[in-house]
Amino acid sequence: MIKVRVIHGPNLNLLSAREPQIYGSTSLAEIDERIKAHAEAIGVQAEISQFNSEGEIVNAIHEARSWADAIVINPGAYTHYSVAIRDAVAAVDLPTVEVHLSNIYAREEFRRTSVIAPVCAGQISGFGGASYLLGIEAAKHLVEERTEE
Amino acid sequence: MIKVRVIHGPNLNLLSAREPQIYGSTSLAEIDERIKAHAEAIGVQAEISQFNSEGEIVNAIHEARSWADAIVINPGAYTHYSVAIRDAVAAVDLPTVEVHLSNIYAREEFRRTSVIAPVCAGQISGFGGASYLLGIEAAKHLVEERTEE
Amino acid sequence: MIKVRVIHGPNLNLLSAREPQIYGSTSLAEIDERIKAHAEAIGVQAEISQFNSEGEIVNAIHEARSWADAIVINPGAYTHYSVAIRDAVAAVDLPTVEVHLSNIYAREEFRRTSVIAPVCAGQISGFGGASYLLGIEAAKHLVEERTEE
Amino acid sequence: MIKVRVIHGPNLNLLSAREPQIYGSTSLAEIDERIKAHAEAIGVQAEISQFNSEGEIVNAIHEARSWADAIVINPGAYTHYSVAIRDAVAAVDLPTVEVHLSNIYAREEFRRTSVIAPVCAGQISGFGGASYLLGIEAAKHLVEERTEE
Amino acid sequence: MIKVRVIHGPNLNLLSAREPQIYGSTSLAEIDERIKAHAEAIGVQAEISQFNSEGEIVNAIHEARSWADAIVINPGAYTHYSVAIRDAVAAVDLPTVEVHLSNIYAREEFRRTSVIAPVCAGQISGFGGASYLLGIEAAKHLVEERTEE
Amino acid sequence: MIKVRVIHGPNLNLLSAREPQIYGSTSLAEIDERIKAHAEAIGVQAEISQFNSEGEIVNAIHEARSWADAIVINPGAYTHYSVAIRDAVAAVDLPTVEVHLSNIYAREEFRRTSVIAPVCAGQISGFGGASYLLGIEAAKHLVEERTEE
Amino acid sequence: MIKVRVIHGPNLNLLSAREPQIYGSTSLAEIDERIKAHAEAIGVQAEISQFNSEGEIVNAIHEARSWADAIVINPGAYTHYSVAIRDAVAAVDLPTVEVHLSNIYAREEFRRTSVIAPVCAGQISGFGGASYLLGIEAAKHLVEERTEE
Amino acid sequence: MIKVRVIHGPNLNLLSAREPQIYGSTSLAEIDERIKAHAEAIGVQAEISQFNSEGEIVNAIHEARSWADAIVINPGAYTHYSVAIRDAVAAVDLPTVEVHLSNIYAREEFRRTSVIAPVCAGQISGFGGASYLLGIEAAKHLVEERTEE
Amino acid sequence: MIKVRVIHGPNLNLLSAREPQIYGSTSLAEIDERIKAHAEAIGVQAEISQFNSEGEIVNAIHEARSWADAIVINPGAYTHYSVAIRDAVAAVDLPTVEVHLSNIYAREEFRRTSVIAPVCAGQISGFGGASYLLGIEAAKHLVEERTEE
Amino acid sequence: MIKVRVIHGPNLNLLSAREPQIYGSTSLAEIDERIKAHAEAIGVQAEISQFNSEGEIVNAIHEARSWADAIVINPGAYTHYSVAIRDAVAAVDLPTVEVHLSNIYAREEFRRTSVIAPVCAGQISGFGGASYLLGIEAAKHLVEERTEE
Amino acid sequence: MIKVRVIHGPNLNLLSAREPQIYGSTSLAEIDERIKAHAEAIGVQAEISQFNSEGEIVNAIHEARSWADAIVINPGAYTHYSVAIRDAVAAVDLPTVEVHLSNIYAREEFRRTSVIAPVCAGQISGFGGASYLLGIEAAKHLVEERTEE
Amino acid sequence: MIKVRVIHGPNLNLLSAREPQIYGSTSLAEIDERIKAHAEAIGVQAEISQFNSEGEIVNAIHEARSWADAIVINPGAYTHYSVAIRDAVAAVDLPTVEVHLSNIYAREEFRRTSVIAPVCAGQISGFGGASYLLGIEAAKHLVEERTEE
Repeated sequence: MIKVRVIHGPNLNLLSAREPQIYGSTSLAEIDERIKAHAEAIGVQAEISQFNSEGEIVNAIHEARSWADAIVINPGAYTHYSVAIRDAVAAVDLPTVEVHLSNIYAREEFRRTSVIAPVCAGQISGFGGASYLLGIEAAKHLVEERTEE
Repeated sequence: MIKVRVIHGPNLNLLSAREPQIYGSTSLAEIDERIKAHAEAIGVQAEISQFNSEGEIVNAIHEARSWADAIVINPGAYTHYSVAIRDAVAAVDLPTVEVHLSNIYAREEFRRTSVIAPVCAGQISGFGGASYLLGIEAAKHLVEERTEE
Repeated sequence: MIKVRVIHGPNLNLLSAREPQIYGSTSLAEIDERIKAHAEAIGVQAEISQFNSEGEIVNAIHEARSWADAIVINPGAYTHYSVAIRDAVAAVDLPTVEVHLSNIYAREEFRRTSVIAPVCAGQISGFGGASYLLGIEAAKHLVEERTEE
Repeated sequence: MIKVRVIHGPNLNLLSAREPQIYGSTSLAEIDERIKAHAEAIGVQAEISQFNSEGEIVNAIHEARSWADAIVINPGAYTHYSVAIRDAVAAVDLPTVEVHLSNIYAREEFRRTSVIAPVCAGQISGFGGASYLLGIEAAKHLVEERTEE
Repeated sequence: MIKVRVIHGPNLNLLSAREPQIYGSTSLAEIDERIKAHAEAIGVQAEISQFNSEGEIVNAIHEARSWADAIVINPGAYTHYSVAIRDAVAAVDLPTVEVHLSNIYAREEFRRTSVIAPVCAGQISGFGGASYLLGIEAAKHLVEERTEE
Repeated sequence: MIKVRVIHGPNLNLLSAREPQIYGSTSLAEIDERIKAHAEAIGVQAEISQFNSEGEIVNAIHEARSWADAIVINPGAYTHYSVAIRDAVAAVDLPTVEVHLSNIYAREEFRRTSVIAPVCAGQISGFGGASYLLGIEAAKHLVEERTEE
Repeated sequence: MIKVRVIHGPNLNLLSAREPQIYGSTSLAEIDERIKAHAEAIGVQAEISQFNSEGEIVNAIHEARSWADAIVINPGAYTHYSVAIRDAVAAVDLPTVEVHLSNIYAREEFRRTSVIAPVCAGQISGFGGASYLLGIEAAKHLVEERTEE
Repeated sequence: MIKVRVIHGPNLNLLSAREPQIYGSTSLAEIDERIKAHAEAIGVQAEISQFNSEGEIVNAIHEARSWADAIVINPGAYTHYSVAIRDAVAAVDLPTVEVHLSNIYAREEFRRTSVIAPVCAGQISGFGGASYLLGIEAAKHLVEERTEE
Repeated sequence: MIKVRVIHGPNLNLLSAREPQIYGSTSLAEIDERIKAHAEAIGVQAEISQFNSEGEIVNAIHEARSWADAIVINPGAYTHYSVAIRDAVAAVDLPTVEVHLSNIYAREEFRRTSVIAPVCAGQISGFGGASYLLGIEAAKHLVEERTEE
Repeated sequence: MIKVRVIHGPNLNLLSAREPQIYGSTSLAEIDERIKAHAEAIGVQAEISQFNSEGEIVNAIHEARSWADAIVINPGAYTHYSVAIRDAVAAVDLPTVEVHLSNIYAREEFRRTSVIAPVCAGQISGFGGASYLLGIEAAKHLVEERTEE
Repeated sequence: MIKVRVIHGPNLNLLSAREPQIYGSTSLAEIDERIKAHAEAIGVQAEISQFNSEGEIVNAIHEARSWADAIVINPGAYTHYSVAIRDAVAAVDLPTVEVHLSNIYAREEFRRTSVIAPVCAGQISGFGGASYLLGIEAAKHLVEERTEE
Repeated sequence: MIKVRVIHGPNLNLLSAREPQIYGSTSLAEIDERIKAHAEAIGVQAEISQFNSEGEIVNAIHEARSWADAIVINPGAYTHYSVAIRDAVAAVDLPTVEVHLSNIYAREEFRRTSVIAPVCAGQISGFGGASYLLGIEAAKHLVEERTEE
């Protein structure tokens, strides 16, 4: 069974409470349930956590090296400046999918740049909670592709 | 049945011939078959075309207004400057998914900006031909969500 | 009688359907009628077309050399990047008036630059369909002034 | 009868003396006569003044609130930096037309930006003294449109 | 008794009439009363004026040298470009507090830069009319601190 | 009684030891005493903490949602890049006042931009320890205003 | 015999009519004759066309893959923004020489950037019609060099 | 006798009081005396005024047209943004010398740009009060040169 | 004996595993042994730690104030944006040497700026593990120099 | 016989030793022979030198005024910043061809700007040693054209 | 007697031959005579040289330390990039006057920046050969002022 | 014995005379002695020269190819713009260490960029004369490493 590490970045614990016109009204717990259900349905085991601290996210990425086949990460606000997370992703060398709830390209100028995107395999943004489901599928696809080589 | 207009932008007809280290070695015909098969499998009817001309893409988007439920578009090189395609997407007001074969954020500086992204629902990039399959799923998701409202 | 070539750029065929809060709720056909009526009333013959393709607009400008006295052009999205249309306007050397339905200076940053304006005689923007009527008058004025010299 | 406040910005009192290759050889007095004649002919009463001081222009705009239906303003050099005039235009909330004798987009880089344009209804530039005549017509059009609503 | 010169910049005379969603619905007269009352309550004598002209503000700052202990200034639109006011503040060498009704950092890009701030002691923005009250307190604090040295 | 969460950002624990020519010679403990005294005097209960870690500040802001009426925050170095703190402030939707000991607009270029300011109610900078006292007053004012609505 | 595809970009059909002080007074037909004569003289067969539409140029480049040994292209106005033509050149992988009649580095700022140059073998600009003759020679040189490898 | 209009810009009335480490400790009255004495000594009549308002400076330049042979101007803070003064200098077409007490190129970044310099004959900066004396000599030189032509 | 605090920034714990073509194939443990050995050989006691969290690095710098004579720090990814670490270095006022394994000036654009360098005594980059050994020597040199003063 | 001054800029003496993947494996001596042979074949006398110093290149250009009909120059690294060489080329007013071995537009960003190009007749880049041969032909062409006028 | 080192930068030896519409028709020898005559007349001994090489100018500035009281330098093209000359001027610590024949602020964008100006006492530009004469006077003034201190 | 070429750039001959608050009070001769002593102590033979001319430095680097094992270079002012020196370093392919006396990252903006750093092995800055001693050690280290490969 394919194992995927799912990482939610800062402030995502406040989902549904926070600016629902941008992020939707589903809580993070509900999204996590949908992720787990969808993952299982396609034969993927998803390990999910949320962190507010940049250092904790770096640690979680490092730790995933020993057991995960891929990473699905929504770096939240760190998307735009955390070179530390970027370097962690590059260092562990697991296929990584960057996801975003909102379409970051339709928002403030500073949200349109991701310092993490260049070291990920790909990016999915703008589909609300479904961004994660598509991310799990993409991760599965990347793992299978890598195995075939 | 949900109907999705799939539009390939300029030079994609040369896929597999063109810079395979970036775009992969699958031909466009093969990708189209995979799109059609996957679409059918999830109850989506996909109408697919490739265009080299900006004006033809604008026309194809206009024409989709009368019958399609959503658009999946890989604007290719036009991604980076075609305000005409952007305005066409904004004008027809169909849920639109922007897809890219390669991770445009890991390439040349000028490829990291999409003038079309701000008017799309979301963006999927970096998964090769699978970007389209995820795009079809995302489009389906957007249409169902809109219908539910 | 003064002959003026009126050219509508891309997506203007969708007027009234497209973002009415920006472009108004009058259709292009209605605007064309108003242009023709107003032109006739002041002794101007207006030949009007709409094109989505940059190349077609270049061709239309070239073709106008043989019969028109002036051009009134709303380059739409091409306003912001089409050096080809700019060069065409400069090449035919007819007095040219750039018009816009909306006030492009009150919109997104990228819409505030016109690469075509520097080779036109002048620019009129922000008065909805009336921008064309003022454009016809301005064109007439330019032709008469040129004749007097 | 529609009442329009016409405001000439700094240095326009030197017209015909000043760089005639850019601004033409008509004096401001002659232009003012043409404006008055044209305004009357279409049922508009035009009150015209010229000011060299930014503060005087702000005052004139404020004062117009109590009696004018619209403003036609050529902010001259202040076009490019006077946020004070911009705020005055925004504050009085009268339909305002920005006009320029020359095509500011065909001149020095710094003349291509208007800080005032975003709060005007529209802009007319490049037709010499006729820019004002078109501006009066546009103002009339805006007032009638507002009245109809 | 501490004497503070309070200076309102351009267009503030239109307060409550002007864009109330940004500046609130209190008139300048009402704000002036609140300033005077609050000043008196904490032992400060406030001399208040409003000017639309940059030169008048420069003059008022110069004039304050002979009698005032501090300045509280809302430079309005001049905040963003008046080096003349900046130089006046630097020249008179009175402790100066820059205040703004609105949070200028949450508005248009060009309003986020103050050329005057670097020569002021400090800045208070975003609290509506209360910005002035806090400004008076801050000015008092600065004068007392200077006296103690 | 109005409850205000006061948050000191990184390195503020070294106050008086650190660059006294910029930050003054008062220690953080002394400032905290002044804040508490002043808050009590005007009927405000202030809960004060200092954090060096960005993640801890995000957590403290989240935690304040359940009991505080307003936030007074000096984000220190994080002012200039922590989108995570910005998003936390926006998410909890409490009236928030950004304060700074020094006038950040009179310092190095990179200190003149606050990514947090646009989501705060207002900003107070440059008055040393008194910035906090004014901040408490401003917070009280914001809470009362909100209650009145 | 070496076969070279020669492509003239937009507006070049108006040569001699268009701004002769920049582009010279020779017509395109005359230049084409000189190209053919010179090509033949050095053992090259030149197939020449002019296109105003970006899409047509992309198509012409694609089509050349099946028979030509090299491309000589004057992309005209598209030089400065057509990533679509750039990608076409990169995709067909034929040695390509970019030519310009005028010295584009001595003209307007925006003409000094070629998005196409980075994927060409080399560039020749500034020698009027002779730029094409040198381009044919350069193309021949590149083909012979490639054959020798 | 050659007549030169000498114009001091804003805040120069505070000279010797204002930041003496930058501007020196001589008062404006003393400088004016030195200017007059030096002018007379070389056969020049100098008419000197100081203005804080931009509009007054524009007026003074206009007025000089009727009697002066040249202008020596220290535009002070207006140097960096007053296009109105620039246009006035360009309009009156008198040989104009821009002078500065301090070396503006050794000061803050924003002081290193003069919008007025491009329309002056030349510039002299950095020699304290002596900048004016050299300016008078330069003006005399320009007038004599013009007369000789 | 001179005491030096050696701080490794984020992701350095993965050395030898992480991108060896950039960072070399020596593990952090091996580098630490070499640092200790070299330090001892020249009479320096080195206290070494690695941290992934920005806040922990700030704390470690603060803590060093009480016992260390100098700091040698490789801020890793935080080099490019951590103003918090910069302020900590400035606050503790110990001679600090910034070191990097790789030549950061030969890498991606965003790695060429160090926000920390301006507050360090000096910088050593590009010599792999030997950068630390040179850093220890430089730190020793700085301490001795300071003592001599 | 037409006389052409050929100037090789800095470091070109190391050709074949230096980065052969960029500059090819032919030595400068070999290239010089090819230039001489080709020049003679088309009736041109080529005087060739290589210089590492900017001043020597300026001198060589000055000296060519007295005998040469044209200049072919590869300014090497000076291409990107030597305004002194630019001014020398402009001053001697001989038709000048700028040549480069490599396609400078396909290299590092800073190599894509030539400060010398705007004062040359034209530019040839990217054809290795053959760039010089084409340059000689272009120079001959320019001289003949000039003579014909 | 005051001794002044006068240094002419690159290409000035071609004066009168070179672009006379910009630099005038006087030769350098004539200017040197005028400098010497004027210097003598006011009690200054001028030592004049012209150099094309940056290194020679650095050497000349160094050498002046041992005997000259001031420097008058026209750095020509090196004005815009020679940090080496800037550092030489700063190092020798002689009062230095930067002069230019033409008004560099009315020319190409890149000529409007002087890297040398910030370390000079002042700058004189735009008066043709007379710039040097004014420069000699300014130098004399600076030396006398320094002596008086 | 390892042979190292040590190159001092422009103005370093004036050390101790020049701005001692930045560069220290040690003369170049003293530094050279320390370099020689330290080099000998660790088995390195150092050949040291100082040059003011860019061309001479290029020549010295070329010349080192035939006998030196490594280069230690302080390019002085040329650090910031000499692409010629950069290309020379890249061409000779000897391990090269860039050194600076002062911390260039704590100085003027323009001194923070080194065009030479990207082609060096590494950089050492900020330790005064000791920067050279560390540079010699680093060079030795690089040579030994290369030999071991």
